[in-house]
Amino acid sequence: MPKKEDSKGITVKKEEDMPNWYSQVILKAELADYTPIKGCMVIRPYGYAIWQYIMDFFNGRLKRLKVQNAYFPMFIPESFFKKEAEHAKGFKPEVAWIQNKDEDSNERLALRPTSETIMYFFYAKWIRSYRDLPYRINQWCNIVRWEVSDVKLFLRSREFLWQEGHCVYETEEECRTETLMFLEEYRRVAEELLSIPVIMGMKTAREKFAGAKSTYTIEAFMPDGKSLQLGTSHELGQGFAKAFDIQFLGKDEQKHFPWQNSWGISTRLIGACVMMHSDNKGLVLPPRIASIKVVIVPIFYEKDKELILNACMDIKKSLKIETELDDREGYTPGWKFNDWELKGVPIRLELGPKDLEKNQVVLVRRDTGEKQSVKILELTKRVDEVLNAIQENLFFKAKKVLDDNIVETHIWEEFKEFIRQKKLVKTVFCGDIICEEQIKEETGGATSRCIPFNSEKPKDSCVHCGKKALYEVYFSKNY
Amino acid sequence: MPKKEDSKGITVKKEEDMPNWYSQVILKAELADYTPIKGCMVIRPYGYAIWQYIMDFFNGRLKRLKVQNAYFPMFIPESFFKKEAEHAKGFKPEVAWIQNKDEDSNERLALRPTSETIMYFFYAKWIRSYRDLPYRINQWCNIVRWEVSDVKLFLRSREFLWQEGHCVYETEEECRTETLMFLEEYRRVAEELLSIPVIMGMKTAREKFAGAKSTYTIEAFMPDGKSLQLGTSHELGQGFAKAFDIQFLGKDEQKHFPWQNSWGISTRLIGACVMMHSDNKGLVLPPRIASIKVVIVPIFYEKDKELILNACMDIKKSLKIETELDDREGYTPGWKFNDWELKGVPIRLELGPKDLEKNQVVLVRRDTGEKQSVKILELTKRVDEVLNAIQENLFFKAKKVLDDNIVETHIWEEFKEFIRQKKLVKTVFCGDIICEEQIKEETGGATSRCIPFNSEKPKDSCVHCGKKALYEVYFSKNY
Repeated sequence: MPKKEDSKGITVKKEEDMPNWYSQVILKAELADYTPIKGCMVIRPYGYAIWQYIMDFFNGRLKRLKVQNAYFPMFIPESFFKKEAEHAKGFKPEVAWIQNKDEDSNERLALRPTSETIMYFFYAKWIRSYRDLPYRINQWCNIVRWEVSDVKLFLRSREFLWQEGHCVYETEEECRTETLMFLEEYRRVAEELLSIPVIMGMKTAREKFAGAKSTYTIEAFMPDGKSLQLGTSHELGQGFAKAFDIQFLGKDEQKHFPWQNSWGISTRLIGACVMMHSDNKGLVLPPRIASIKVVIVPIFYEKDKELILNACMDIKKSLKIETELDDREGYTPGWKFNDWELKGVPIRLELGPKDLEKNQVVLVRRDTGEKQSVKILELTKRVDEVLNAIQENLFFKAKKVLDDNIVETHIWEEFKEFIRQKKLVKTVFCGDIICEEQIKEETGGATSRCIPFNSEKPKDSCVHCGKKALYEVYFSKNY
Repeated sequence: MPKKEDSKGITVKKEEDMPNWYSQVILKAELADYTPIKGCMVIRPYGYAIWQYIMDFFNGRLKRLKVQNAYFPMFIPESFFKKEAEHAKGFKPEVAWIQNKDEDSNERLALRPTSETIMYFFYAKWIRSYRDLPYRINQWCNIVRWEVSDVKLFLRSREFLWQEGHCVYETEEECRTETLMFLEEYRRVAEELLSIPVIMGMKTAREKFAGAKSTYTIEAFMPDGKSLQLGTSHELGQGFAKAFDIQFLGKDEQKHFPWQNSWGISTRLIGACVMMHSDNKGLVLPPRIASIKVVIVPIFYEKDKELILNACMDIKKSLKIETELDDREGYTPGWKFNDWELKGVPIRLELGPKDLEKNQVVLVRRDTGEKQSVKILELTKRVDEVLNAIQENLFFKAKKVLDDNIVETHIWEEFKEFIRQKKLVKTVFCGDIICEEQIKEETGGATSRCIPFNSEKPKDSCVHCGKKALYEVYFSKNY
């Protein structure tokens, strides 16, 4: 029989060894696991439930925005890849190929690292007239990028799950407006669903998507001083349309190339959420993505057992949300407390004979550990309030981490020092790819995160090369 | 401007050229399309919406049955495949492999044709004690089976979408009970959601899943006289548990091998639905899977335009279900009728000035073409009733096709004649794999569909070889 000493708690501290802590939280909360297949991970039910919340939330938004789901082949002929030169070049190193078993075909097939090329082949066939525009399609699928073989659970793996939206417009303006609109939708997913505050902006030339005119991004800042790109939205211009010959008959009865965008978020969001909110007791989940929102732990001696368990069942029934009653035999209440804290359940309710006598329960918040007695009659309302409070508190705690770590300098020596201190450094930058490459080298890995939307035209010159600065840019280490 | 003569209607008759008719319905209703990648198809939004209904319905059931969704790697090491000998042999010809780019690894990776082996590898790690059982996991994913290169839209393609459930139990009895329970769930999907009646039963030795002890199936019968297997549920016994060393500590404190099942349905269901219900005007969708349940077509001369359109918009708002108002300019009402019939929308409402004067609309059923005038005040209720009536009517029409085509004989010459007549033939059979092989050859392709659950112990000898008959079996041509 497991006792308190068998507790499978986290054995390292977040502030001391973040990578090990992160991996322990995910493994021990049973969100995911490593695999014997290099670079791959498996998403366990408790982790997949988070992805399901993200899918449901985002599908709801897509429906409103008139984006329709579809499914395209995972196999992309090599010739499709080559059609858009920059795109082909950008993805080349990380494409996995299958051995084609057909005797009459010697073209290799790629496993999709992203689906622009395969989707736009069909768009050229399906889109005929301005009446078909805007044309908005989304796909939920698995993606293969043959990157480094050491997996970082949820953050970097050779296969992962994502959604990719691909839209087509009559005008450049409409295309840009919606490219930014989808980025704003990503901000909502991050901030409203996952309680992760983000900085929004545009990527520099070095960091933009292969084949895009402009890439926009939402960037989160992790407690260990590294940024994490959470979602991107690309203005593709007319490059792919020309490469794939997508044309529409305009109102002017002439043929035109349309304007396109694409945008994606992935299971990486789950990793961001774990890293941002969890603590040394284990997982902390924002209530909106917690598949168990409340756990009831009964506390009794044998003589009160039936009474207490019945009361717990009544409470479970009365709560209209996902509630678990932990009536497992052979475990102490203390062991159960630890176990559910490890699992990140937002609210724990404890009910013992003395509580029941007073018609109340003890409510414990996972995020703060705060305890309060609540009258059973008021419980539904109180649980609701506390869940909202936790959702908000997690956001504001994370926002404080972000705000406290933003520093600004236009001086190179200070810049390097801030990067050493693992800050998110706002500076001024020339925009040059080679200059950015040098900054990365000379700082041991700092890259540009984004040009913030509210950026002002700089007066100082580039922090690194001293040439004319084009814009304000955030730099930091990153995942 | 498209006129009636541009109508993109179906140009062949279902009863004359089923394969061509089937393909036209799918292409013209924009459910799916062919691709330049051999053996692959693309699912367009209007077709994917049907899959979404199936996923939502089935996910709802899974939740009740305490089955949890997860996601396992698509890549399966060759050594995993080899662990269960029969399984490996059965799937060998249709596995696609990727070229492993890692220098330090020379093991090929399969793209999952099914996930038993990769999932059970983890089960061996995760399952410890009887407390973990029953262990029920489901996965929605893409599957790759490198079969013939000519795709049959939704029915046969090298990549398709499916769900696969994989459960683990303490006892054989519990395992069998749930194997049949999941088959019953599949019957519900087919009959209640898709209006497709099925026969349920067990597969013969020749037709069972590679690695299973027993395979159970739901079989539909298509209007062209071929059966279509819609879903299977496999009792795996302890074979995989032993191959992958899945063991649990029992209540007796001893280690035991558990009992397992697996079960799956795929996007093939969409094809079955199209083939079963559609007609020479195009698609016919059961209301429960129609993403547009009602279409309103306004009929007016210019002077009444605003009045009629406003009334239509009011009707659209008042209906609480998925309703489309076809206010496209430049198309005649007749052209629109054809277009929506092609798309299979269950109910069409027509509203012209004379209807409006009488506060009524004309309601037209897609399945029967039947027209009725309905008072606008009674419309919500009437639409609901008619949608239910269509759902039922489609089921009973299909049930009649099934019932009318079932024949029974124990005489070989009659059996062959029935197969020539494309019937679903109930007969008595010895169960021998070679005998079944011979029946297939001598009839030009008839295979056993299933041993029905209500089967009686036969008194006559095997219809083909004359040896002792073991059970009643359905035979027919099949997809």
